[in-house]
Amino acid sequence: MILSALLTSVGINLGLCFLFFTLYSVLRKQPWNSAVYAPRQIAKQRRKSQNGGDEEEEMLLPSAGWVRRAWQVSEDELLCRSGLDAVVFIRIFVFSSRVFAIGGAIGIFVLLPVNYLGNQLSIDFYDLPNKNLETFSISNVNDGSNWLWVHFSAAYIFTGVVCYLLYYEYNHISLRRIASFHSSPPQPRHYTIVVRGIPSSEGRSFSEAVQAFFTDNHPSTYLSHMVVHRTSKIRSLIKDAEKLYRTLARAKSQSSQQINKKDRLLGLFQGRDTDVSHYEQKLEDLERNVRTEQHSLTGGEVPAAFVSFKSRFGAAVALHMQQGLDPTEWLTEEAPEPRDIHWSSFSSSFMKRWISRIVVVVACVALTILFLIPVVLVQGLANLEQLETWFPFLKGILDLTIVSQIVTGYLPSLILQLFLYLVPPVMLMLSSMEGYLSSSSTEKSACTKVLWFTIWNIFFANVLSGSAFYQVNIFLEPKNIPKILAEAVPGQATFFISYVVTSGWTKLSSEISQLTSLLWSYVTGVFSSNDDEEIEVPKLPYHSEIPRILFFGLLGTTYFFLAPLILPFLLIYFCIGYITFRNQLLNVYEPKYETNGRFWPIVHGSTIFSLILMHVIAIGIFGLKKLPLASTLTVPLPILTLLFNEYCRRRFVPLFQYYPTESIVKKDKEDQNRPNMAEFYDKLVTAYRDPALLPVQYARNNSSLSSPLLQSQV
Amino acid sequence: MILSALLTSVGINLGLCFLFFTLYSVLRKQPWNSAVYAPRQIAKQRRKSQNGGDEEEEMLLPSAGWVRRAWQVSEDELLCRSGLDAVVFIRIFVFSSRVFAIGGAIGIFVLLPVNYLGNQLSIDFYDLPNKNLETFSISNVNDGSNWLWVHFSAAYIFTGVVCYLLYYEYNHISLRRIASFHSSPPQPRHYTIVVRGIPSSEGRSFSEAVQAFFTDNHPSTYLSHMVVHRTSKIRSLIKDAEKLYRTLARAKSQSSQQINKKDRLLGLFQGRDTDVSHYEQKLEDLERNVRTEQHSLTGGEVPAAFVSFKSRFGAAVALHMQQGLDPTEWLTEEAPEPRDIHWSSFSSSFMKRWISRIVVVVACVALTILFLIPVVLVQGLANLEQLETWFPFLKGILDLTIVSQIVTGYLPSLILQLFLYLVPPVMLMLSSMEGYLSSSSTEKSACTKVLWFTIWNIFFANVLSGSAFYQVNIFLEPKNIPKILAEAVPGQATFFISYVVTSGWTKLSSEISQLTSLLWSYVTGVFSSNDDEEIEVPKLPYHSEIPRILFFGLLGTTYFFLAPLILPFLLIYFCIGYITFRNQLLNVYEPKYETNGRFWPIVHGSTIFSLILMHVIAIGIFGLKKLPLASTLTVPLPILTLLFNEYCRRRFVPLFQYYPTESIVKKDKEDQNRPNMAEFYDKLVTAYRDPALLPVQYARNNSSLSSPLLQSQV
Repeated sequence: MILSALLTSVGINLGLCFLFFTLYSVLRKQPWNSAVYAPRQIAKQRRKSQNGGDEEEEMLLPSAGWVRRAWQVSEDELLCRSGLDAVVFIRIFVFSSRVFAIGGAIGIFVLLPVNYLGNQLSIDFYDLPNKNLETFSISNVNDGSNWLWVHFSAAYIFTGVVCYLLYYEYNHISLRRIASFHSSPPQPRHYTIVVRGIPSSEGRSFSEAVQAFFTDNHPSTYLSHMVVHRTSKIRSLIKDAEKLYRTLARAKSQSSQQINKKDRLLGLFQGRDTDVSHYEQKLEDLERNVRTEQHSLTGGEVPAAFVSFKSRFGAAVALHMQQGLDPTEWLTEEAPEPRDIHWSSFSSSFMKRWISRIVVVVACVALTILFLIPVVLVQGLANLEQLETWFPFLKGILDLTIVSQIVTGYLPSLILQLFLYLVPPVMLMLSSMEGYLSSSSTEKSACTKVLWFTIWNIFFANVLSGSAFYQVNIFLEPKNIPKILAEAVPGQATFFISYVVTSGWTKLSSEISQLTSLLWSYVTGVFSSNDDEEIEVPKLPYHSEIPRILFFGLLGTTYFFLAPLILPFLLIYFCIGYITFRNQLLNVYEPKYETNGRFWPIVHGSTIFSLILMHVIAIGIFGLKKLPLASTLTVPLPILTLLFNEYCRRRFVPLFQYYPTESIVKKDKEDQNRPNMAEFYDKLVTAYRDPALLPVQYARNNSSLSSPLLQSQV
Repeated sequence: MILSALLTSVGINLGLCFLFFTLYSVLRKQPWNSAVYAPRQIAKQRRKSQNGGDEEEEMLLPSAGWVRRAWQVSEDELLCRSGLDAVVFIRIFVFSSRVFAIGGAIGIFVLLPVNYLGNQLSIDFYDLPNKNLETFSISNVNDGSNWLWVHFSAAYIFTGVVCYLLYYEYNHISLRRIASFHSSPPQPRHYTIVVRGIPSSEGRSFSEAVQAFFTDNHPSTYLSHMVVHRTSKIRSLIKDAEKLYRTLARAKSQSSQQINKKDRLLGLFQGRDTDVSHYEQKLEDLERNVRTEQHSLTGGEVPAAFVSFKSRFGAAVALHMQQGLDPTEWLTEEAPEPRDIHWSSFSSSFMKRWISRIVVVVACVALTILFLIPVVLVQGLANLEQLETWFPFLKGILDLTIVSQIVTGYLPSLILQLFLYLVPPVMLMLSSMEGYLSSSSTEKSACTKVLWFTIWNIFFANVLSGSAFYQVNIFLEPKNIPKILAEAVPGQATFFISYVVTSGWTKLSSEISQLTSLLWSYVTGVFSSNDDEEIEVPKLPYHSEIPRILFFGLLGTTYFFLAPLILPFLLIYFCIGYITFRNQLLNVYEPKYETNGRFWPIVHGSTIFSLILMHVIAIGIFGLKKLPLASTLTVPLPILTLLFNEYCRRRFVPLFQYYPTESIVKKDKEDQNRPNMAEFYDKLVTAYRDPALLPVQYARNNSSLSSPLLQSQV
């Protein structure tokens, strides 16, 4: 790729970005789009308006300063409005911007001139626009040249800077995590643990076993428990009832309005009243079913329970210690937030969970390694001739030159993209099969899976072109890895530069403009005039977004000293991303649960991996460039990095797992003087009741239009 | 090696063994050897005789039935007399005997005939005595022969049997561990934890910090604490004083006796009285020094303390939970038994310990991998010509054929043996540099190190002859491991058979006959007529014995289907070892501390490693023998074994780390009704006082001859 081609591509994508951002700043001012661009405010306002308040109307007024607003919001305000997870997410951008600002300065002002002045590739010196981009990469430095020591020093300095920033961020976020624990009001999850693997004994229910065990072993702190039941059947009945209830509510509101033209056109005007009563009858039947199920359920206990304690310390003690004589029984886990629970994963036993976890790991590794095989097969099937054989009627169209060019040019990459879009949901599904008790742990696990998938299938698959087995083979001979990577990685620099520009920048524009949601809202808006309907505020899909950002970090780190030209583009990506996602977190996404910053260790791990990868490539490159001394002297670098990582693991990771005694006892003491603790204990006892077992009341609940399920959840 | 040669070697060694065992049964009956063969009884008797009792005299009477007695002692009796560690040690023999009884039956009656009937090596069928031993190994089975499926099935069956027995033993020992906890009287270590990394703050001593922290955070359970001081100087002073005290005591007892002939010969008869008063003066000076040091010490606190609690549960809670906000501060650890403490490892900080641990790991890996290089160098230096150059006066002797044969034949192996004898102490030293708080953890860590050292330097160094770097290189290309091992391992079968016979059996005879101690006792007996001296009862050096036994287990497992001829010899080894060590544990060795069975996980891990190694070799062998299907079908075997190991890890390892809440609470409840708990608490407060800080009193203590230090320790 030559410089001018790259500049053209950058220009086009920059233009597209500007277009989308302008479009956004216009579209977001239109009130009818606010459900897409500011669902949080809308939802908040609705909830308020039910209570009478309406003071945030001015948030919906047109305004040009969204960038300024997104910029000005302080971290504390973000924390308060979107939780610590959102702060962590934004810190990834802050951290990456800092890293690549420093790295970019070194790269552009030190490494790039050195590379450019080399003449290994012996291309004409003056024709800058037609310059091959390789001229700016380390490939252009002469073999054995002492200038390579500049790269060597840069690698050391960069690693030092990244490690310092990593330490700083880990410290910052761990302090935030503790601070947010200290400032939180009493939460049921801090007083509760999940107990699994309750041993069954004849003639005694699980509930009795839990009661006996905890009154025996934690007599002074045990408060209450709530055994989990098998409720999948009830859940599906309630889902049906809820659906029916919505249909009914819509039918009612429409029958009370004038039957308008659109309804008549759709043939829905007849028998509105009979419809309503028919639905009501059906809903009542369903409700009766649910109640019957709920009553007959008492036997269907699962060997798992939520056990609540009188103090956070009591819960922590039971959580940390092995309870029973058999370590596979009486397993304790942190209780998730009530809204965060995966009720269906409670039924599995220790053995079943353990086996399914192994199966999932195997499936995941297989999917990651073999992903490209089916993709290539499908791409092979979807070529021009095959399409003409399958769909003969397309023959005329496909024979047009431009169409055939688009098909051959875009179809394979379209197929790849489609397959790639499927990966995060598939990984989420695999993670949920592992039997995590909460959606947040499932998402965290999926995040790691998607990250490894991305690194393998985008980085390594592009770098080590060849069959999957060939790639795996390389890693079975660890000795050759540095050499093979050093030969292959620099060649892909231009590809990854354009990847950053096209995939990265474009993704940000589509994120801010929310094209899919916008189109979808128009489509649904045409068919449903009812704008009283519940607005679903989406949540940020961390498991697909975090790996993407981290992957760009990996690209920047590995290419930092190979082809520093990539760094400015990455820096732009991270800066735009910072603004974009701050805006989205404030206006669009709402947290559905809170892990209190537990995504950060993934970011840390990924950055350490990127650094090590860079070091391995450096060892290989210096070897290839006939500077074996530099190659040898680079070896301590990955070792030092791993030691740094190990230190951080000891210094910070415990804080991301549990809260320390000091904090817990302090909070407990503060709460002793809190006036409404009795009330909290009352609530605590029922906080972890399965929502499927709460009394249902749809038939009589017709006046209010908000979902009864939402109300019943704590 | 041919069969007759092996049989000769077996015959000779068997003869030697019998000789030693007969020798033992004669020598042990002689009263003057009882300090070597029954020091436990002697010591016990001495202690008793001070209290007046003398009822176990008959134990010292000559008796022929030591084998029967060693055999008849039940496991419970052994547990009661030598602790759970001794039981675990004996269980290794029980487990190995069972494994190789079953394995031997399969090997000798199924695999051996199959091997013998093959004709890959095409050697004359009938000349049995001159048969090459390879005829009995898998090498003799024809390539591609379907008989190899017998070996394949044997590998599966053997793995199944071993895993079953492993599970059984793990379960047995974990139950024993819990049971011995339940039956033990209150012990200070269960009520106490070690706290390290106490944060320093200005104007407050560590002691105050500990007091404040634990009364704040564990108000209801905290009892007392004892901050550790820097006492290395006092310890060395006390050591000097003790030495002087002993000299003084001996001088006194000799001056009060008649000055006998031996003393006169050695020129010790003059000025006995002036000597005594001189020593007394010196001892008093030393004592004064010690007291001054003890008083001036108050400032020399180390950021570590023993914190005692009112209940086991209170201690366990503090132990399991992260205490401080910074995970590198307020680190809690289990308290060792008071007699098991390594007082000198307290002074190091978190960082220092962490770094020294890394340094030790590196040193250990380097020592293990590179051990053979210096050995080979020294062996090269110690050849005949070199010796003649260095010691010209030996020239005449060395020129004799027989001497030169012995020197060239035995010197290199002698040097190797000498170096090998140095390994366990060196590993123990390295482990103690890691900063473990107790001798038992140091020994456990040294045990693992010695095990890996043995496996690498005896198994792999013999199998993969070649430079250390070549060996390491093999493991950097994991793909080729099965093939290389399959080519190299069967060839060493005869070497390892004779290794079992010579090294294994001989070691057992020298263990039972205690030749070194015997000679030493004769030598010291000649120079010192004082038989009132303290008898030092030795402890079993687990860190050098366990790896040896496990290594024989590894040999048996890997050669089980390659060369089953090794199995009977191993079985004999384990059976004799069982009797020998039971006898030694009852009569010779005394436990100095108790890990309560924590050595077992090492045994389990080593056995799993042996199995995996066997599977890897099987995969390679079936490939070499042109039966690729069997090779592929063996692949699930290591995976299943690892899964089994993982299951055991979850099922049993927690029990070997800590005691479960259920047991702890039960014990605490039982103790509430115990009458002498108040007394125990009083003792608990001072149980962890550094012995160096106890009042010294040698000068006035002359009448009693037992060591005052021993008295002062709890």
